[in-house]
Amino acid sequence: MGELRKDPITREWVNIVVERAKRPSDFYHQEESRFVRISDHSRCPFCPGNESQTEAALLEYPADEARTRWLLRVVPNKFPAFHGESDARRTAHGVYFTAAAVGAHEVVIETPEHGKSLARLDLFQVNLVLSAWRERYLALRRDARIKYILIFRNHGGVAGASIDHAHSQIIGTPIIPQMALTKIRGLERFEREHGRCIYCDIIEQEQRDGQRIVTQNRSFIAFAPFASRHPFEIWILPFRRDAHFVNISRDEQRDLAAILKETLLRLDLCLSDPPYNLMLLTTDFSDQFHWHIEIIPRLSIAAGFELGTGIFCNVTAPEQAAQFLREVVVSTSSLETRHLVMRRN
Amino acid sequence: MGELRKDPITREWVNIVVERAKRPSDFYHQEESRFVRISDHSRCPFCPGNESQTEAALLEYPADEARTRWLLRVVPNKFPAFHGESDARRTAHGVYFTAAAVGAHEVVIETPEHGKSLARLDLFQVNLVLSAWRERYLALRRDARIKYILIFRNHGGVAGASIDHAHSQIIGTPIIPQMALTKIRGLERFEREHGRCIYCDIIEQEQRDGQRIVTQNRSFIAFAPFASRHPFEIWILPFRRDAHFVNISRDEQRDLAAILKETLLRLDLCLSDPPYNLMLLTTDFSDQFHWHIEIIPRLSIAAGFELGTGIFCNVTAPEQAAQFLREVVVSTSSLETRHLVMRRN
Repeated sequence: MGELRKDPITREWVNIVVERAKRPSDFYHQEESRFVRISDHSRCPFCPGNESQTEAALLEYPADEARTRWLLRVVPNKFPAFHGESDARRTAHGVYFTAAAVGAHEVVIETPEHGKSLARLDLFQVNLVLSAWRERYLALRRDARIKYILIFRNHGGVAGASIDHAHSQIIGTPIIPQMALTKIRGLERFEREHGRCIYCDIIEQEQRDGQRIVTQNRSFIAFAPFASRHPFEIWILPFRRDAHFVNISRDEQRDLAAILKETLLRLDLCLSDPPYNLMLLTTDFSDQFHWHIEIIPRLSIAAGFELGTGIFCNVTAPEQAAQFLREVVVSTSSLETRHLVMRRN
Repeated sequence: MGELRKDPITREWVNIVVERAKRPSDFYHQEESRFVRISDHSRCPFCPGNESQTEAALLEYPADEARTRWLLRVVPNKFPAFHGESDARRTAHGVYFTAAAVGAHEVVIETPEHGKSLARLDLFQVNLVLSAWRERYLALRRDARIKYILIFRNHGGVAGASIDHAHSQIIGTPIIPQMALTKIRGLERFEREHGRCIYCDIIEQEQRDGQRIVTQNRSFIAFAPFASRHPFEIWILPFRRDAHFVNISRDEQRDLAAILKETLLRLDLCLSDPPYNLMLLTTDFSDQFHWHIEIIPRLSIAAGFELGTGIFCNVTAPEQAAQFLREVVVSTSSLETRHLVMRRN
């Protein structure tokens, strides 16, 4: 069970995950050993046949009526950063505050096929992943102790993945992150001053400028943000403003599957399967937001200047990144939507 | 010349360093090639004899009266993230703002000895490094275009160092980072509510609790902060509150050299010379601060959860980290202060 501790100056919370406590020697040469690329499928906990290595599924999409095989499973994280067996009581220790790291930490096993990345799954399967994200989000937000939910994925060891079988994660926390508050406040401030949604204005300006757009379809636009902190950073925004990802329609979800796959495939082809983090930013605590996805390839290192100031130095202008990504040749068949069957609860 | 761009939502600035622009292929397999460990000293730009590979020194501490050898040099960074040949004019592009990345970016070559880390330098030399930090800070703050100055060091390739010869860096920026504002505001808020300095209260509580202290001397305390974001994160705070590092007295500077060397040596011995970032946080734009040093060993990876929420999951409790660091046996002779001669302008 983790313990949340509040920084008394920045008011940001930190999660001290004591069960995973490490000795100094565990950190030696960790660069080499951290990422587990499992070539022997019989040992992969996310592969079909090894379901007993995970806890019982919270959600399973069967491959056939007989339910003998599955297409996607959601299971509790074996080493949860947040979990459900406590209340969210806070305690004071002098100037310090702690809270139990109550919440949820789930793993979405995105495919039974070991070694196939999200970018390479067919659209039907990508759409299943979105369905699972939405379904588990709806389940988690019924827990009154959970105040914030983040859906994210770590792809590649450099991006923090520990297992190479394609998976995403969903974490529910008992606190609202300062970062989420900062974004909501930024949006509210702009709305007070200009009577408009800043994200909607950004979309309009990106469409006028054109040079930072990677791709777009009926419902979404993918672009390299003007103030990209990281080389090849990409945001995917819905044209229709909604604070809540879970309000996505069936048509929008199909369009999201298509633009997400295309964007990840372009990154994969352009940068030779780079490590990346993907975050789906949405909110329950406010109706004033414009949910979206941020993708951050891990191509550079945040060093002392970034850690000390929060100001990132980015060696690739977003206009350049977008151009490289647009120039990637993606075959139409790999983006085929013809056989896409929707699945929604 | 870099271009500063402001994120219209978070109001954080990003520095797009266009001169260093990279093509996608520059990022392939960069993990292996990023860090230049130079074993052939004739090729190291920071080694004696190769002074022509850097620009003219901004500051040099000679080893002897004849000035034939040097103990420490400060030179302009060859690839500056910020530099002086422009004004700080801001420009609007629709909802976006830019500014020229005017400022300074200097490198402190901490020793002529290649392969000797700051932790392994003798105290006299560590003290010279502090003198250089102070002297260049005083010089940079005379430039009215510079609004914020960060002194920092990256140790090891994983921490973002590109050359292994011991060096630190000083960057002056034309903007005040949001992160600095957040810390000042946190301190001011606590002072309004409690009439006390939060950092002074933290020192008092750490001394009462004891379990997170690494070491202390007459003027400074080194401890693992209660809400450590990273395993083995250490803060070094002066007992005497002052917003400005440059107000440090000669005695305090000697004590800082001693505690800095001891702390880095304990980290080195405990964690087998880990990569780390060091940041000296001080301020010119406010007299309400308590300057200090933060040291962040790079032992874990910030993944999607951290990037999406700003909430760090830390697998080593600070109480544990401090205990491991205290238990390291450091020989008295390596911390000898007897021969320390002060150098100050």
